[in-house]
Amino acid sequence: MIVVLSGGVGGAKLVLGMSQVMPPEELAVIANTGDDFTHLGLCISPDLDTLMYTLSGEVNPETGWGRKQESWQFMDAVEALGGETWFRLGDRDLATHIERTRRLSAGATLSNVTVDLCQRFGIESGILPMTDDKVRTRIQTDQGELDFQDYFVRRQAKPRVSGFHYSGAQTADPSPAIRAVLAHPGLRAIVLAPSNPYLSIDPILAIPAICQAISDSPAPVLAISPIVGGAAIKGPTAKIMTELGDQPSAVTVARHYQQLLDGFILDTVDCGLSDEIQALRPGQGMAVMSTRTVMRSIEDKTRLARFAIEFADSITKAAR
Amino acid sequence: MIVVLSGGVGGAKLVLGMSQVMPPEELAVIANTGDDFTHLGLCISPDLDTLMYTLSGEVNPETGWGRKQESWQFMDAVEALGGETWFRLGDRDLATHIERTRRLSAGATLSNVTVDLCQRFGIESGILPMTDDKVRTRIQTDQGELDFQDYFVRRQAKPRVSGFHYSGAQTADPSPAIRAVLAHPGLRAIVLAPSNPYLSIDPILAIPAICQAISDSPAPVLAISPIVGGAAIKGPTAKIMTELGDQPSAVTVARHYQQLLDGFILDTVDCGLSDEIQALRPGQGMAVMSTRTVMRSIEDKTRLARFAIEFADSITKAAR
Repeated sequence: MIVVLSGGVGGAKLVLGMSQVMPPEELAVIANTGDDFTHLGLCISPDLDTLMYTLSGEVNPETGWGRKQESWQFMDAVEALGGETWFRLGDRDLATHIERTRRLSAGATLSNVTVDLCQRFGIESGILPMTDDKVRTRIQTDQGELDFQDYFVRRQAKPRVSGFHYSGAQTADPSPAIRAVLAHPGLRAIVLAPSNPYLSIDPILAIPAICQAISDSPAPVLAISPIVGGAAIKGPTAKIMTELGDQPSAVTVARHYQQLLDGFILDTVDCGLSDEIQALRPGQGMAVMSTRTVMRSIEDKTRLARFAIEFADSITKAAR
Repeated sequence: MIVVLSGGVGGAKLVLGMSQVMPPEELAVIANTGDDFTHLGLCISPDLDTLMYTLSGEVNPETGWGRKQESWQFMDAVEALGGETWFRLGDRDLATHIERTRRLSAGATLSNVTVDLCQRFGIESGILPMTDDKVRTRIQTDQGELDFQDYFVRRQAKPRVSGFHYSGAQTADPSPAIRAVLAHPGLRAIVLAPSNPYLSIDPILAIPAICQAISDSPAPVLAISPIVGGAAIKGPTAKIMTELGDQPSAVTVARHYQQLLDGFILDTVDCGLSDEIQALRPGQGMAVMSTRTVMRSIEDKTRLARFAIEFADSITKAAR
């Protein structure tokens, strides 16, 4: 069993790679739901959707989110009615939101709805919302504290960030499925995907029972750096690091997660940083390896997934 | 001021004709909401939508309902998710339902939402939901008592009908706007559109304050027969009459409404029935006129509208 903690686009690429090298029943993804919000009356879970669409081959290959062969007739009609159009909902994508909203309103949990949607999309691996409780990522910025989608989509991540608040996380419970996978006797690795640490992974780790279970797990915990050569592959990770007074680098990522990590994967272009990262946990040992981490093709994704699993296995072996 | 009581497709044709011959501020439509229902979590008002789309030129000219230039990507995606597809919601049509649902959930009344939607669609005449309370038409059939859309759309009006129940109508209040138009000092006529009497007009008349206001109004009350030559122009009106043990004819329509009527318009093909209809209210007088009532072109609609208004005026004049 491999458990991956993931946000949307970047994490979904690694998860797709993992799905190529692991039997579906041995792959579980704990997905960030801190970005979830209600928009036009619909319950929207952007990271769950990106994971589902990516694993089912439904994703728009150009954007990495949304559905392929999408059309925008609904959005144009909403605009004509004077409705909000800053968050783009495609005609095909809408079916997911409407089905989710309908079922949540009828009392189903987000976990149950996700299980059924995954089944409909033909996904056999477990995509597990981090909690069925409401956790909302809020961003402290020079324009005030903002809701995630307001910051990320409407304001295009332009405001200067000074901090984060994962509202509801302290009292949120992970689902029974998450407790089960993290306590699985055959757990081989826990992988923090190359997602944005602050916006995608930290909301998951902010749930005390998840953080504790990861910390307590005998399985090796790895992270893959989303920062390559001082820049983010996608999104505002590097910009946020600078705004928080940190250098945008793989070292900053490793330091951020250091209490949890047994291993860290950075890109070959950053291999000169290995010693510095290893030194973060001098007494307890932090294994560091470098490889090509930029995932463009399916081969890139599969290769990185296999690399991470073998790296985890080597840490386990070394510990014996 | 002209007030039209209307259901969907058939009534909307007359209303469109009325909108061509009356200044917009002097035309008010009381629309049936007994067909309204919640589907896929959305609040759907089929007759309001048909009226809005017809008056704004947005209607699909082939069906008489739904929007023109419609696409069905959402519906196909819902089908792939195993959702319900018996009630077809187009991508463009969805914008109306989502906007309505969002605003009703936020506490707006159906009347207020309709005012705003009409404004967005560029409609200046008043389209007034018969009530902001919940009234639901239920059909007693040989397959049990059915919800309207279950009977009408899902079962294609095939079950044998024995009666109707307008659940909630007895305690429903008309909106202030409806009270105002029915008490308008310049009210020139109240017209029962050639809609299905049982499914479209009776739900409106089942609201006691509306029926009373129509009955009390000094303005002439007219009906236009939806039955022409013993058949309905569209829909199950004739079939239902037969199932209820009545002959499908303009006489049955006139008899149905007779307590309220001052005048009745039937098609020229039925002019032989005039005497029988006049005899329905021998003491009080029931004016009957025949004209071509089948509305295909916009000219047909405009002509019938003008005919109805002039007929009403002649009744008023005769009464003085």
